[in-house]
Order: sequence, then C-alpha cells, then structure tokens
Amino acid sequence: MPKDAGPQAKTNPGRFFEDYTVGDVIQHAVPRTVSGGERALYHALYPARHALYSSDEFARASGLPESPLDDLAAFHIVFGKSVPDVSLNAVANLGYAEARWLRPVYVGDTIRSSSEVIGLKQNSSGKTGVVYVRTTGRNQHGLAVMEFARWVMVRKRDLDAPAPETVVPELAPSVKPEKLVMPGGIDFSAYDFVQAGEPHRLSDYQVGEVIDHVDGVTIEEAEHMMATRLWQNTSKTHFDATPREDRKRLIYGGHVMSMARALSFNGLANAQCLVAINGGSHTNPCFAGDTVRAWSEVLEIAETPAPGVGAIRLRLVAVKEGGMAGQLKGEDGKYLPHVLLDLDYWALMPV
Amino acid sequence: MPKDAGPQAKTNPGRFFEDYTVGDVIQHAVPRTVSGGERALYHALYPARHALYSSDEFARASGLPESPLDDLAAFHIVFGKSVPDVSLNAVANLGYAEARWLRPVYVGDTIRSSSEVIGLKQNSSGKTGVVYVRTTGRNQHGLAVMEFARWVMVRKRDLDAPAPETVVPELAPSVKPEKLVMPGGIDFSAYDFVQAGEPHRLSDYQVGEVIDHVDGVTIEEAEHMMATRLWQNTSKTHFDATPREDRKRLIYGGHVMSMARALSFNGLANAQCLVAINGGSHTNPCFAGDTVRAWSEVLEIAETPAPGVGAIRLRLVAVKEGGMAGQLKGEDGKYLPHVLLDLDYWALMPV
Amino acid sequence: MPKDAGPQAKTNPGRFFEDYTVGDVIQHAVPRTVSGGERALYHALYPARHALYSSDEFARASGLPESPLDDLAAFHIVFGKSVPDVSLNAVANLGYAEARWLRPVYVGDTIRSSSEVIGLKQNSSGKTGVVYVRTTGRNQHGLAVMEFARWVMVRKRDLDAPAPETVVPELAPSVKPEKLVMPGGIDFSAYDFVQAGEPHRLSDYQVGEVIDHVDGVTIEEAEHMMATRLWQNTSKTHFDATPREDRKRLIYGGHVMSMARALSFNGLANAQCLVAINGGSHTNPCFAGDTVRAWSEVLEIAETPAPGVGAIRLRLVAVKEGGMAGQLKGEDGKYLPHVLLDLDYWALMPV
Repeated sequence: MPKDAGPQAKTNPGRFFEDYTVGDVIQHAVPRTVSGGERALYHALYPARHALYSSDEFARASGLPESPLDDLAAFHIVFGKSVPDVSLNAVANLGYAEARWLRPVYVGDTIRSSSEVIGLKQNSSGKTGVVYVRTTGRNQHGLAVMEFARWVMVRKRDLDAPAPETVVPELAPSVKPEKLVMPGGIDFSAYDFVQAGEPHRLSDYQVGEVIDHVDGVTIEEAEHMMATRLWQNTSKTHFDATPREDRKRLIYGGHVMSMARALSFNGLANAQCLVAINGGSHTNPCFAGDTVRAWSEVLEIAETPAPGVGAIRLRLVAVKEGGMAGQLKGEDGKYLPHVLLDLDYWALMPV
Repeated sequence: MPKDAGPQAKTNPGRFFEDYTVGDVIQHAVPRTVSGGERALYHALYPARHALYSSDEFARASGLPESPLDDLAAFHIVFGKSVPDVSLNAVANLGYAEARWLRPVYVGDTIRSSSEVIGLKQNSSGKTGVVYVRTTGRNQHGLAVMEFARWVMVRKRDLDAPAPETVVPELAPSVKPEKLVMPGGIDFSAYDFVQAGEPHRLSDYQVGEVIDHVDGVTIEEAEHMMATRLWQNTSKTHFDATPREDRKRLIYGGHVMSMARALSFNGLANAQCLVAINGGSHTNPCFAGDTVRAWSEVLEIAETPAPGVGAIRLRLVAVKEGGMAGQLKGEDGKYLPHVLLDLDYWALMPV
Repeated sequence: MPKDAGPQAKTNPGRFFEDYTVGDVIQHAVPRTVSGGERALYHALYPARHALYSSDEFARASGLPESPLDDLAAFHIVFGKSVPDVSLNAVANLGYAEARWLRPVYVGDTIRSSSEVIGLKQNSSGKTGVVYVRTTGRNQHGLAVMEFARWVMVRKRDLDAPAPETVVPELAPSVKPEKLVMPGGIDFSAYDFVQAGEPHRLSDYQVGEVIDHVDGVTIEEAEHMMATRLWQNTSKTHFDATPREDRKRLIYGGHVMSMARALSFNGLANAQCLVAINGGSHTNPCFAGDTVRAWSEVLEIAETPAPGVGAIRLRLVAVKEGGMAGQLKGEDGKYLPHVLLDLDYWALMPV
C-alpha cells in the first residue's frame, strides 16, 4: 500500500450496500474463548439470577454437564462479531427473526461467527438499502451454537451504483414449537423450585397473562460500555460521546435486552433457557440515566420432547420512566415513547 | 393462578413480619458457583491486596490448597441470597452477631444459603417488628462455609395480625477466641512478610492502638451496583434512582465493608483471614461521590491452635469526608455524621 | 511499637530519594495469580480484539499452548506491584526504556515483581532526585516474564540528607531487533488473516506510514479505577477525588496505553504480540470525560527468527479531543496539548 494512501487506508471502512451479494458468506473476525470471567461479568452487569446459569449443581440436576453461559451472552458474542461486517454503516437495525439457540456455550468454548447474505432490497431513495443476513455462531468443534436472521438498513457508498435484484427472504413470523432445539440432556423432572426461586410451573401461566416485573435499574455509562466491549461490539455510537451535545452514548440494544431479561426473573424465575427469538424491535433509544423496568405477556404455551420441560412464548417489554406494564402502543398504533424494547421469545420451563 | 390476579401476582412481594415463625428454616434461592471471575471482579472493585487471597503460591505456603475467595465476598454471596426472604420489606438492618467463617470458599464451589428464624419481637407501634435470623451458607458438599445472626426491622402487612410471642435470642457480645474456626491446614510458620507487604506481626500490635489507613477512594454508582449485583442482592434501593430527587442510590452496606477492609491493608497487610464478625453497624448512609477512608482500633489479641497463627480483634471504621481516625461518637454518645460503618471482627495474623 | 507512635506508624509512607542505593534489589509485595477473570475484565475495559489474545484456537494455530493474557495486562501487573516501593512519593514518572516481554503470562500463572536500583541523580534544587530502576516480573517458576527500566522523580524526606554519588545508567534509545524475545513456539506460517480481522501483512506497511485508528472512546471514572485496582496499583491520585476542586482523578497512564493499543486494532489487527517498549511519555494528563483516539506511525521493520513472524516498530500516540493523526509536537518542539501518550514499541506481525 503506497504511503500516500492516507492515514485511514489500513482501517476497516465497513461494507456499504453495494458490497453485499445474495449468497455470499462472510466469515467474521476474532474468535473468542469464554471463561468464568465472562460469566461473572454478566452477573455483575445484569441482575441475572436464573439458577441454571448460576449454579453447576442446579445445571447437573437438570441434565447438563455444568452451568452454561447465559443465553443472551452467547447471543451478544455471536452478534458482536458481525457488527464490523454488517452494521458498521447501518442507519438502523430493523429486526430479528428465526433466532434459535442450538447448543449451550460452556466455559472453555471458543466461538466464531459467520453471516450469509439472504436478501437485498434497495430503498426507493437510492441512498440506502436493506440487507438481510442469517448469522451463525459456531464453537471450536464447528458445531452451531446459535443462528438468527436480522435485517439492517445500510448506506450506499456510491449513489450511482446499480440496484441489485430485490430478494426479500421469507422469514417465519415465529419459530414453530417443533423447531425449538432442546439443550442436550435437559430434564426438568426433578426440578427444584425452591432453589430456583419461585413456585410457578408452566401450567400456572395463562396465555394473555401480563406480568409486571416491578424492579428498576438506572443505567450508567460505564456499565453499558463494559458490556458492549465484552462482546467485542465495535459500533462507535456506544462509546464516543463527542457527536452528541449532551455527551450521551446510545446504549447497545442488547444491553437493554439483557437487563430486561434479568429483571424478568421476578415473576419468571423458572423461564430458564432461551431457545428462540421470534422477533424483536428496539423501539426507542436508551441512554445512561434511564431507569429500565420490564413487563412480560404470555403469548403461547407448548410441549417439548424433553422430560418435564415445556415451552413458553413471551413478549418481553423494556420501558423507561413513564412506562407501565401492559401498555405497548398508542392509539396511533405506534410504540409509546417509553417503550425501549419489544422482544418475542421462547423459553423452557418446568411443566 | 387466574388471569385477573393482576400483573404482580407472580412476583415475590417478600415476607412481612407476620410471615415469620420462630424455628422456621427458610431455604434461600439461586445457588451460585464461583469462578476466577468473581475473584478478579472483587479485586477490580476494591483495592484488595491481602496476599493469601491474591496468590495461589502464597496460599500454598500457608497450608491451603490454593487461594480462596476473599472472605467478605463469601459473606456477600451468603448474605445476598437471604435478601429476598429476609430484608425485602425491611425498614432497617439493625445488626450482626456471631458471624463465623467456617471453611474457605474456593473457585468451583457452589454456595447456597438458608436462614433459621431465631427470634421475633413486635414493636410497640404495632406496625413493625424485629426478626432475628441465623443464616448459614453451605458449599456443594453440604458443608457450612459461614454463619451469622442478623436482625432487621420488618413491616407488617396486616396491622391487625396478632403479635407473636416475643422471643429475643441471646447473642454473644463477641465471638470467644476458642470458638474461632481455623481454615483447614492454615500454618503461618513460614510466613513471607516481604511478599505479604508489611513487617508487622501480631506482637507488634497493642490493644488500644489506632491505625489510620490513610488512603481514600471516591465511590461511583457503576461500581457499587456491579458489586451488589455480583452478590445477587436484589434490594431495589441500591439500583433504582427514581425514588430520590438527587437520583442517588443507597449504597449496599457490604460495599462499604469491603472497601474499608481493602483499605485497611495499609497498616494491617498481615491481618489475612477474617474468621468472625462480632458485631457491626451501618451508622450513616453512603452515596456515590463519597470518599471513603478507614481506620482501625486493636480491641483484643488471642492465641489460636494453628501453627504460627494468632488472632487479632479489630474495630474497623469507615468514614466519609470529614471523618478522622479515632473519632467515632460525639459527646451525645451517637455516631458522628461522617462515620459510615463500625465493624468489630476477628482476623488471623502471623505471631 | 509503642502505642503513642501515632495512628500512621504502621502504614507504608513509601520510600524517599535518600532511601535508595544503587545496586539495591527491592522485592515488591503481593504476588498475583491470574485467571480468566482478569482476561475478561481486560476485554470489558478496553476494546481489545487481537485474536491471539481472544481465542485459544487462534493461539494454538500460532504455536502457543493457549491464549495468553494481553501483554499490557502483564505489564500493568508487574508495574503495579512496584508502585508502593518506587513511585508513592514520586513527583513525576519520567520515562521507560528497554522494556521487553520475555515469556507470555497464562491463566494460572502467579506473578511477582522486583526492582533493582540502577541509577540515582539528585536534582540541583536539593529537594528531589531521579531514581532509575530496572523492574522484573517473574512467574511461579521464577522465570522472567518481562523487564523494563523506568525513572521517576522522587521527593527527599530530609532536605539535609547528603546527595548520593550520581549514577546515570546507559539505556538504549531502542531495543535492537536481535534482542527481541519470541514467545516460545510462535509461528505465523499458517496465520488466518480472516479470523484475525485484517488482510495486511508486514510487507504491506512502510516506514513513515501514519495510520489513523479512527474510533474514539469516552472514559468514565468507574472504568479507569476498576482497571487500576485490578493491577493493584495503589497510587492515591487515581482514586481519591478530594484533592481537586473538580473532583476528577488523574487517570493511570497505563489505562491510556491500553486504550490506545486496543483502538489500534483498527489498522493494526495483525500487530499481535508486544515484545518491547523502546520508550514512552505520558505527555498530558487524562481525565474522565476525555474522548481518547489513537494514531500510529511505522518507525522500523525487522526480521525475526520465528517462522512467518516479522517485527514492526510503531509509535502509538493517544490523543484527546482536538488531536489529529500525525500531529505530535508544536513549532516549539513541545508536545501538543491534546497528546496524551507517545509510546514507541515493537510488535510481532505475520510477514
């Protein structure tokens, strides 16, 4: 590279809309070996208390070899690797679908991540386009630990670049219960409700039931930055205070997701394993100083082939001050200004 | 549970005064496996430098299999589990007594916790009562790692509920030296004072001696919340800024305890193992922005059966700005406004 | 020690200029065993992404037994131990030279540290003097993991103490390439540029080339204090807000070093192992709220005996807001006010 290439010639400018081709598979950089350190940090950054992810003994009594890394931590690691290749020049993170956890991540595992481009659609403005990818995380044995589709709006570098053929993938509105993958060996036949923290089993929940998780956590800049760095997510917007006059940094949507999920322990302590995300929207930005609360709505209940294990489909909503349990959208059909996250997921629960 | 039970029907409302019965044993939820991550976080959150808790080599030279988790971290884990069952509706944390460490906690151990109700006394107002519990932490082998008595003032749910028979347990004003439990194998015969950081052995300390630990640490919101979450302590008051106009969160008393103990390294580097807490009071609240300093007073000196190991009983006082070494109470007999913590404990030291 | 010795009699006052003698070797206190926790915290505190330090698989493919602790973390641990003996009464940290990493630090290693006094020079004021030390970190096998020379200006306790004979050590302006020590087994013949994150090999870089690392991170008090405590660095100035009216704490220079090195991934992702620091200056203080960016200049390129491994000598410059890539000093020859760090180091890169 010639010396006069300029001081940014070696750095990663990220991909622009015209750099994606349907069918391309992008190998994301920087594999990551997880240790007890990642687990402890997750438990320091979020009020995470689900027993299966806290105690090796509880995990063994549930048929697993030891306590896995929290499922959303696995998601953040797989997702974070995709940021430099998928969303560095993104204008908006539009949605998730068909996310499934396929295998627990244990201490000592090394995770890598890749994304296949599964759809492209240039916007009518000609300045941006929507890129659909299916991202897969794999462990050191090459076995998939999770996969998800997401779509983002990405800028074009060259506004004159021709529009690609429009390909919009068909994505399921929700993961069918029969497609949920059970963590190998999982068995809730001898589930200890006392150690887990709540007496409610799957049959205690009803479709339509709304649960207010009550507790609130006020977020600090240091915390969300530590979390986001831990997942090696490089998006500048989470770290650099200079673009905004109030010096606030936009909080990684996954931080809100993990905070809300951890808060949902109070009322959903037995919703142990995340097995799928059906869809999710980061509906309003979150900033340091916001106090995050959460509420859930039971959407669906299903059987699974694992002994003593049922599946519960939940809407998890994170709100900031002003938000109320059960209130999601206004009369105009738009999300209320206090709603930060609307996440639709499947979890496993003792029947 | 019927759907119209309301959105908080599934959440834990905590126990009220009339929910306790003397003799009841409450199993606290969410066992916890500790890793090197908890150790590293403890050393990032507090200026902890006691060599036995920093170096496997130093621990082995002292007769232990490896370096244990810092004793106060073990205390916080056992204590944190009891919060949802004991102090969620507490008005005040009134005191500790008869706390003893019974066995070190090592990386890989899984800790659970239970509390026996040992006393009840309704207050004359009829609105609250004092609950006395003895809390025990156990490892995965069912062996006790620590125990302590504490008493808290708890609200009544139903002011018309009848007062229980008053039972006030007899609690020792201090743990007798012969009741101190030595960590198995501990031996300070070949103690390395250079690596430990100070030359002072037990015989260098005199009863009545006051030690000013000099250094100060200004506390941040992110730090005390990370610490408190790490111990899975769910008390809302430490996390939710919304109830107070100044948006400050009340700092968990145990955070101040750990900070003061870590600061006491400077002058008490050889007070290695905590073996008992005789009593303790959180005398004034601590908030982010406060600069914490500490001083100690030597209260008692005793022999132990372990080779080369003596016991030193110390008063550890944490103060914020304005506090001075040796100044504890005013002429009115009340704690000075700058005093945050008055802790009376036993530690092990080379003779 | 008599009771009337005063409350600070047991605490460490630090060494003053007249307490040093050329040839003395000071054993620093508090050995430290590192775990996955230290690694995870490093990756939460800095946007560190170099693959060799993130993935056991990548490390094994590069000839190492597993992923080592980040090299600057090893430096901070060795350095931190020397603070109570070398720089507690320092007025200024004047420089580094001849720093070499001699052996990677792996999880489970226990690090201790010692310093030899290699030079002394009283200043003409008679109030301070310069102390030169060579500090060595060793693992549990007694094998050196790193060494460096540094010199600090230290206060005299007694202004009437006689000046020592002046001894100024000869320190190399830079470590010669043939003196660089390769991590045992290192081999970049099968280097995976995709997983490492960038395609640039050593031959793609030219002496004189300037790289703007683009990204910025705004620093928080909680983060730099957690980092500095993790290295058991006890310098009061990083923790105690009370001496300054703006309540800011001076950030440990090593925090800026690690931040800049991590940011340099973007453009230098393949500069994997640090093997030497030729010199370094903390040119302006850094405070919470500053947004740190970094740029590098290629100073020299060299061969090494390890297969597929070359050495690149880099100037790494950290700047705060107002700093620009390539701008280091003003017309007066002094560092610009926005320059925080000027570090000259050697790293290993695939040829």
